[in-house]
Amino acid sequence: MTDNSIVLLSGGLDSATCLLIARAEGLDVFALSFDYGQRHAVELDRARALAGRYGAREHRIAKLDLPVPAASALTDASRRVPKDSLGAEAIPVTYVPARNTLFLSHALAWAEAIDARQIFIGANALDYSGYPDCRPEFLAAFETMANLGTRAGTTGGGFRIRAPLLAMTKREIVTRGADLGLDFSLTSSCYDPDPAGRPCGGCDSCLLREKGFREAGLTDPNRPP
Amino acid sequence: MTDNSIVLLSGGLDSATCLLIARAEGLDVFALSFDYGQRHAVELDRARALAGRYGAREHRIAKLDLPVPAASALTDASRRVPKDSLGAEAIPVTYVPARNTLFLSHALAWAEAIDARQIFIGANALDYSGYPDCRPEFLAAFETMANLGTRAGTTGGGFRIRAPLLAMTKREIVTRGADLGLDFSLTSSCYDPDPAGRPCGGCDSCLLREKGFREAGLTDPNRPP
Repeated sequence: MTDNSIVLLSGGLDSATCLLIARAEGLDVFALSFDYGQRHAVELDRARALAGRYGAREHRIAKLDLPVPAASALTDASRRVPKDSLGAEAIPVTYVPARNTLFLSHALAWAEAIDARQIFIGANALDYSGYPDCRPEFLAAFETMANLGTRAGTTGGGFRIRAPLLAMTKREIVTRGADLGLDFSLTSSCYDPDPAGRPCGGCDSCLLREKGFREAGLTDPNRPP
Repeated sequence: MTDNSIVLLSGGLDSATCLLIARAEGLDVFALSFDYGQRHAVELDRARALAGRYGAREHRIAKLDLPVPAASALTDASRRVPKDSLGAEAIPVTYVPARNTLFLSHALAWAEAIDARQIFIGANALDYSGYPDCRPEFLAAFETMANLGTRAGTTGGGFRIRAPLLAMTKREIVTRGADLGLDFSLTSSCYDPDPAGRPCGGCDSCLLREKGFREAGLTDPNRPP
């Protein structure tokens, strides 16, 4: 058994807070990001900066060969990211088919290879966009599956999918990040940033972030211009 | 709802039989193979030939960026693939961490994007190498997870993971393939073929294949030289 852990690091507020939580627990962090053709590729630069600043042992950006980029507005630049429509649809067009399943599966493969037993994901089921793969029942089912489908899960201590932000509001996440000393200027949450990486201010993710900072009584250093 | 289905197609005997089973059920087949740095890359040529011969609507070879190739003898050319050791170890060194989890996750993402509801995998839990991700309890857990973590699983008819060979012996698989008209010369099973693609005759997969043909009373057109 090691103190190795995997942290899924998108470069956003939530995954950055997860990284600091894992570090605060004394874990060695192997940070995993994905280049999946997302229109908000600026987040990969932020992930690099966060991994460096907060002492990840290794940062891996895996190239993810998505079958049908046009299946989501997040990966098809010709589609419009909805603005000011938080909660308007049950599951919005920014949903990427099976994204967290893919992310967690790649994390699991890496975890098994480096003898890590904990995988952190910044999923949140309160102030979120309504994606099915952010819900607690999905994460529990993934953990069960992971422990049945791997050597480490069946012969040695099992894997744990850690989602410490799952039941937090955005206000609580911002507060927790601030308590842990997170430099928010390094994080990027927007689904549709401009070419310079500045947030749009209108997508679901920007609206949730703004709400979190406002309710926490803090100023977002990366607020939209 | 469509008649679309995904078939995980490695180019081996089992997945080729799955492809023919799906076609015999009248399904439109979208075949999915992976380039994950396997030393037996000849199987991708076989997968292409099989997809073409048996009328797959589309054949996709996804590049899979494995985190630690050295974690398996199948992806590290400097490690030796064990010979004549079938059953000697609970889980052999040819095990690739979370491989079927990764394969099925990519299949799931494609399935959701093209409105397919059935995913075929040639997993077999009788005459097999002892990999944990070939067991029925793993496949059932994956299906449960898939239906919790996707839009299609939560809002429309769910996904089914089909493993029609799961409870078959190799003899039964060979017989079923023959009944469906499978041209066995197009299939490759060896973990460690020579540069010309000829099977080694000694790895677990070659031994299982040989046993299947012998017990079925058939001659393997691709038997080792």
